[in-house]
Amino acid sequence: MGDQVTAAVTGDLVRVSAATLERLRREPAASQDAVALFASACRINTLYMIARAGSGHVGTCFSCMDILALLHRRRMGPDDIFFSSKGHDAPALYSTLIGLGRLDYDRLDRLRRVDGLPGHPDVETPGIVTNTGSLGMGISKAKGMIKADRLLGRHREFFVLTGDGELQEGQFWESLASAVRDELSELTVIVDHNKVQSDTLVSRVSDLGDLEAKLRAFGWEVRRCNGHDLAALDQALQRDPTDRRPLIVIADTIKGRGVPFMEHDQLPLDTENYPFHSGAPTLDQYAGALEALTATAEAQAQALGFEGLAWDTVSLSPAGTGAAATAEPPPPERLVDAYGQALLIQAAAHPELVALDADLVLDTGLIPFQQRYPDRFVECGIAEQDMVSQAGGMALQGLLPVVHSFACFLSTRPNEQIYNNATEGTRILYVGTMGGVLPGAPGHSHQSVRDVSALGAMPGMTLLQPGCAAEVAPLLDWAVNDCPGSAYLRLLSLPWPAAFERPVDTTLVPGQGYDVRPTSTPAAEVAFIAHGPVLLSQAMAAADRLEASAGISARVINLPWLNQVDADWLAELAATVGLLVALDDHYRIGGQGDRIAHALAREVRAATGFLHLGLQRVPVCGTSDEVLAAHGLDAECIAAATEHALSPGAGS
Amino acid sequence: MGDQVTAAVTGDLVRVSAATLERLRREPAASQDAVALFASACRINTLYMIARAGSGHVGTCFSCMDILALLHRRRMGPDDIFFSSKGHDAPALYSTLIGLGRLDYDRLDRLRRVDGLPGHPDVETPGIVTNTGSLGMGISKAKGMIKADRLLGRHREFFVLTGDGELQEGQFWESLASAVRDELSELTVIVDHNKVQSDTLVSRVSDLGDLEAKLRAFGWEVRRCNGHDLAALDQALQRDPTDRRPLIVIADTIKGRGVPFMEHDQLPLDTENYPFHSGAPTLDQYAGALEALTATAEAQAQALGFEGLAWDTVSLSPAGTGAAATAEPPPPERLVDAYGQALLIQAAAHPELVALDADLVLDTGLIPFQQRYPDRFVECGIAEQDMVSQAGGMALQGLLPVVHSFACFLSTRPNEQIYNNATEGTRILYVGTMGGVLPGAPGHSHQSVRDVSALGAMPGMTLLQPGCAAEVAPLLDWAVNDCPGSAYLRLLSLPWPAAFERPVDTTLVPGQGYDVRPTSTPAAEVAFIAHGPVLLSQAMAAADRLEASAGISARVINLPWLNQVDADWLAELAATVGLLVALDDHYRIGGQGDRIAHALAREVRAATGFLHLGLQRVPVCGTSDEVLAAHGLDAECIAAATEHALSPGAGS
Repeated sequence: MGDQVTAAVTGDLVRVSAATLERLRREPAASQDAVALFASACRINTLYMIARAGSGHVGTCFSCMDILALLHRRRMGPDDIFFSSKGHDAPALYSTLIGLGRLDYDRLDRLRRVDGLPGHPDVETPGIVTNTGSLGMGISKAKGMIKADRLLGRHREFFVLTGDGELQEGQFWESLASAVRDELSELTVIVDHNKVQSDTLVSRVSDLGDLEAKLRAFGWEVRRCNGHDLAALDQALQRDPTDRRPLIVIADTIKGRGVPFMEHDQLPLDTENYPFHSGAPTLDQYAGALEALTATAEAQAQALGFEGLAWDTVSLSPAGTGAAATAEPPPPERLVDAYGQALLIQAAAHPELVALDADLVLDTGLIPFQQRYPDRFVECGIAEQDMVSQAGGMALQGLLPVVHSFACFLSTRPNEQIYNNATEGTRILYVGTMGGVLPGAPGHSHQSVRDVSALGAMPGMTLLQPGCAAEVAPLLDWAVNDCPGSAYLRLLSLPWPAAFERPVDTTLVPGQGYDVRPTSTPAAEVAFIAHGPVLLSQAMAAADRLEASAGISARVINLPWLNQVDADWLAELAATVGLLVALDDHYRIGGQGDRIAHALAREVRAATGFLHLGLQRVPVCGTSDEVLAAHGLDAECIAAATEHALSPGAGS
Repeated sequence: MGDQVTAAVTGDLVRVSAATLERLRREPAASQDAVALFASACRINTLYMIARAGSGHVGTCFSCMDILALLHRRRMGPDDIFFSSKGHDAPALYSTLIGLGRLDYDRLDRLRRVDGLPGHPDVETPGIVTNTGSLGMGISKAKGMIKADRLLGRHREFFVLTGDGELQEGQFWESLASAVRDELSELTVIVDHNKVQSDTLVSRVSDLGDLEAKLRAFGWEVRRCNGHDLAALDQALQRDPTDRRPLIVIADTIKGRGVPFMEHDQLPLDTENYPFHSGAPTLDQYAGALEALTATAEAQAQALGFEGLAWDTVSLSPAGTGAAATAEPPPPERLVDAYGQALLIQAAAHPELVALDADLVLDTGLIPFQQRYPDRFVECGIAEQDMVSQAGGMALQGLLPVVHSFACFLSTRPNEQIYNNATEGTRILYVGTMGGVLPGAPGHSHQSVRDVSALGAMPGMTLLQPGCAAEVAPLLDWAVNDCPGSAYLRLLSLPWPAAFERPVDTTLVPGQGYDVRPTSTPAAEVAFIAHGPVLLSQAMAAADRLEASAGISARVINLPWLNQVDADWLAELAATVGLLVALDDHYRIGGQGDRIAHALAREVRAATGFLHLGLQRVPVCGTSDEVLAAHGLDAECIAAATEHALSPGAGS
């Protein structure tokens, strides 16, 4: 869930050497000490990967590291299948696979980079059997694989790791019944019960209650053990061959295990949020964590009589990280913070306004609201369908619910529930952060480039995206006070430099955009129409390039309305330019460009050219520069495509 | 779930008179006999409504009728709130509200008619507090309402009725936890445990196991009773005021209760499907059911000493029903049956093909496949998210899964799961029946007019809709054998006369349509582009009208590709006509018309006009004629809009 993309750690980073890993995997797997040392080595490499990438989920990686090590070093046969349903523990799995020699050692340097190791698992990576990162799908996926095995006459064991916060998702419970009915004894599920989800303790967010009783009532064989006690874990994972029930092992673990200051039971989580769920450690934190982990590893090696524990030190300079680096000047703006402040203003004026959260207060800017209006804050846990239908009930009874999650989840997981609400004609605001293709670091499960399509046809719903931090408050104000129906506010999460200065007196007219490039002339050859900070900044830079290199004049229009275009306004604009270029931070199908094209086809029977740039395939994972370039959406690609479209006889 | 729209019963139909209902509600509610008689009267009126409408869900209405009667006649206070989460028992609730005098008696005649009583509950109807019909949302909605009450300083009790098949939905389980955490003792949930879901026994589809243990493990107060024993039910619904837990009452009921030949425990459901889930009874069945119900009512009246049980007999002639009547000639074709046969052909050629179902074998044409290939048939229950992710796992392991449900549910409930599968690059076929605005009888929860939008941007997915029964097999063949990625096949469920004869040698070219109106000339003034039998037939009739009344020549193009248009083909077409009219059996936003407009804007810089007709608001519930007219999509409206667009200076 939560995925803060922070700064990469620079300086001296340390990884376990390839030679050490090779020697480690030659140690007999029967020895628990060898497995424990393997896990420690993998923790060190996981820390390295996350620090270098600038983001990742260190706490959950460390809580499941012993489980991964035991499974891969001892429990699983060569054909057996493992995958993690929670997915954000991907660096732990990558470290394991690298430790086993199944993934190239060099990939340690390429977490969350293009052609490297994605932020969440993807089948393009060797050893990854399914894409995860959207929660709750794991058991269902495994059931499908087992049914395929049975039909194809194969027999393998399947091991699926889940989180504990993940168990708040309805699909988890939905998936339990048929595994019992079909006697899927090939299936072992391990719950990494580290007690902490994105924001804080599971028990504070949405308590799981008597988990063993629940799972037993669903007919599964249920066991529970200390997930860091390899002997206990090993025993819990041994199956009785006469038992046809699927097995679920609740492994009690510690989030951040191995680094005392990251271990959740050392932190005051009764009152504070857990600080190491996502993002990268600071340099000091990195050093402290490394010290703790290497001390443990050295002690384990000594006890085991393992010689030759060797480190590689990699010196990284700031320029070399590439993480989230762009050609834009500082300082970046935080739209999510601006949103959090803007919400307070609306909340003060509207006592009927309530905020609903799905375990992402940090990522959706809700902490100030939660503190100021605890009675009007509803924590729903990782249960988006329940959250959205609750909002529906509230709206029917006169409240103004504001529903929050990541755009990728909010627009799709409760898609039918949002439509059900829409058919009731009530007013609800939906706020999706992490909207658009950036940050590219978490990977495609989190890159929300289909939300406008998924929500665009909701009757009575207006979709909006601010182009800069200064536009957040006006758009929210419009959504709360002027919008006749429901609204969806799409927010960039990645800090980003403002591409333009928004005049305070800018008038919001539904479906109309406005010029943001001061040097633009009313009659230009090209007009870029874009939304959101990322593509507006690329459009600005592309316009500069075109002007400088080819003498082509270009206007840049910010159109914050994602699912409506004022046809008259567009006709007027089209009359002044030779080519309209719609830039979509979204798949080309279903994005803002469709609305522009639609208005053009209906209303503008002119000779204005139309070029539409947007995603045409599943987004790649990587740094901002990498991702924009890969999809032809950086300034250079935009300028080139525009120049090509202007050339005589060019199609688009 | 299942919703067969069959023929209305004509002849003499009987309803309980308004005067009788008025006298009945004056009987003291303390008398269980009075409540039982009230329930019997409501059963008779429910039967009347469904027979007259030509569709409805009689079995589930009868199973919950005693519960509704007891709640409304005795248990609930005047401000308390009741709603049904399953929703397809709406006629039972309508009968109750009419019996109570809270809904006009005349509405008995207008079930599933425009401005009448919708097939599933809608808040526009007096006494209906929330829209249901999509399963699993009820508890969430009630939680939201209760939280609103608490914030607004109100106190009311909330009663939510659920089905038992409905409990297969993940959202039900997702919604349980916070009701306990927040001590929602205002909430009572009653499970109408009638043992039978859409197709057959719940235990055969996806067994609920030890339901009491499951619910107790989630922390709810759980009680169980005979749902037709009013005394037992009454007792089970009494709350202990010191208990802060939400209460759930499992009411053991009989599907079809009151009519022996409809009662599920009298039927051989171990081997057969339940025949009275949806659709209307035949005339003989109607007569038999009426006889049983009136005999019961009369005996109850006698025992109670209630005098003046009087019936209204309403004589209905076939022409007067209006149900599903159209101007088209018979015989109607059944595309879903054609699909079932076409699937057998593909299954024979592809041993890797497996079919997944979500409790809708009758409604998705799967019975022949289920019988022929039981090992390759996977019944998932009402658990669409689990089904889709299972398909994902199967596809990763080399199978070709074909996933079935109603289009409205399949495209939205597992929307994120479909995307997750799409990011894995596997091939999966999704088949959504009941695609489009017709049948209009079930209402907007089932009218799938947002599926193209919700799925259109899925990377690598082709969306297809056959224009007649003869096109089903070729499109499925293309999807199985030629499609490079995944596909979504959208099928009309309502039997519908073929609008054109499809030549056997028609070549399928992705993104290209073909002429289906024999009289059309290559250079016409207008070209209608449409998909699916309903709008193609309306386009044909509109073309006839335009030619006859205004001398306007019109082509009609069947474009079975919903999310792609071949721009060159379109340019050629556009060059031959003055006006292109895109007809969308879908909301205008996100439908096929968007793709046509997009291609026009990009490729066709000509003076061709463009008119786009489609839904612009939540679809109304009603007969086919009523619904098409209400949304401007019948032949008359289409012809008028086209003529207007052709008039000088007209906008669109």
